[in-house]
Amino acid sequence: MARPLTPKLSPARIAKAALELVDAHGEFTVPDLAKRLKVSPSSLYNHVDGKADIIELMRGQAVGAIALPDHSAGLDWAPVIREIAVQYRNSYARHPRLIPLLTAYSVRDETTIRMYNVLADQFVAAGFGPARVLEAITVLDNFVLGSALDVAAPEEVWEPGEAATDSLRAALAAGLGRERRADEAFEFGLDLIVAGLERAAAAGP
Amino acid sequence: MARPLTPKLSPARIAKAALELVDAHGEFTVPDLAKRLKVSPSSLYNHVDGKADIIELMRGQAVGAIALPDHSAGLDWAPVIREIAVQYRNSYARHPRLIPLLTAYSVRDETTIRMYNVLADQFVAAGFGPARVLEAITVLDNFVLGSALDVAAPEEVWEPGEAATDSLRAALAAGLGRERRADEAFEFGLDLIVAGLERAAAAGP
Repeated sequence: MARPLTPKLSPARIAKAALELVDAHGEFTVPDLAKRLKVSPSSLYNHVDGKADIIELMRGQAVGAIALPDHSAGLDWAPVIREIAVQYRNSYARHPRLIPLLTAYSVRDETTIRMYNVLADQFVAAGFGPARVLEAITVLDNFVLGSALDVAAPEEVWEPGEAATDSLRAALAAGLGRERRADEAFEFGLDLIVAGLERAAAAGP
Repeated sequence: MARPLTPKLSPARIAKAALELVDAHGEFTVPDLAKRLKVSPSSLYNHVDGKADIIELMRGQAVGAIALPDHSAGLDWAPVIREIAVQYRNSYARHPRLIPLLTAYSVRDETTIRMYNVLADQFVAAGFGPARVLEAITVLDNFVLGSALDVAAPEEVWEPGEAATDSLRAALAAGLGRERRADEAFEFGLDLIVAGLERAAAAGP
C-alpha cells in the first residue's frame, strides 16, 4: 500500500501550523491553514470545530512549556505565583502576535486552565476572597502579556529624535541597549506587583 | 475643473484607513492600504516612507486622544502617572489588534513621545535615577498594554468546563459578568504598581 504523502493530522500538527501562520502574518484563516497542512478544509473540520478550537490548541501549545511548581512542597504562595509568571511570560514572548488572538477568545484549553487552577489555589491560600482572586489573576495576566510583547520589541524601543526632554533622553541613554533591558523591567514590575499583593493579603480578604 | 473623486491624501486619512485594516485583520500591507484609499501605492509613498511610518501615524492617532495632565499645576507625580495610565489604556483598548504591531516598531511618533516626556519628567521628580526611570516607564507600558487587551476580551474570559478547581470556579462565579470587571482589575493593578513605585521612590534612587 502507498504511504500517505503527509503525516496524519493531529491536534499538535494543527497547532504548530496555525502558530507558524500567526507568527508570520498575525492571523490565520481555516482555508489557509488547510492549504499549509496540505489537507482539505473538510478534513480539518474532522479534528476541530472551527477557529475558536484552533486558537485553544495554540494556547495549549504556548502554555505547554510551563512546568508548574510543585505547590504541595510547602512553598509559600508568593514564590509559586512569581515562578509561574516568569515562565508564562517567557512562553508567550515566543509568539507575540498570538497574544491579541488569545485575549479575544474565552480560555477553554485544559493545560491553560491547570495553570489558572494553581494561581487561584495560591491566591485563596493567600487569604483573598473570590472576587479579589480573579482580580489578582487578571492583574498578573495583563502584566505578563504586556511584558511578553516587550520581549519582542526592537532594541531601540524609542527613537525620539529631537522631541525628547532631558529626562527621557537620560533614561534612554541609561536603559536602552542593556542586554537584559526587558528582563530587568519585567522583574522590577513583578516585584512591585507581588509585594503589593502580599500587602493586600496581609490587610485581609 | 472637475473635483477629485476622493479626498486628498493626508497623514490623518492614511492613519484612519490603516487602523480600519488592522482592526479588521490584525495586519495591513501597503498595497491593501493603497487600494482602500483608492490611490496607487506610489502616491502613498509620496506621503510616507513605508510600513514603519504608517505604524507611527497609527500610534499617533491612538495616543492623540490622551489629554496630558497639566503637570505644572503643582500636582504630585503619582496622580499624574495614574491619570496618564488610565487614558493610555482606554485609547489602546479601542484598537487591541494594533498593540503587537506597535510594540514591534521603535516609537518615533511625536505625540507619543510627548506622553513619554511627561512620564520621564514625573519619575525624575519622584527621585528615580535614569535607568530606574526607564524601568518604571516600561512596567507601566507593559501593564497598560496588557490591560488594554483585556478590555477587548469576551465577557466569558474563562470557560473552564470540568477542569476548574473549586478556587477557580468560585473566583469566576464572583468576578465574571461584573460590568466593570476589566476596569476593576486594571484599577487594582494600577494601585499596586503606583504604590510600589512610591515605596521604591521613598527608598531612594
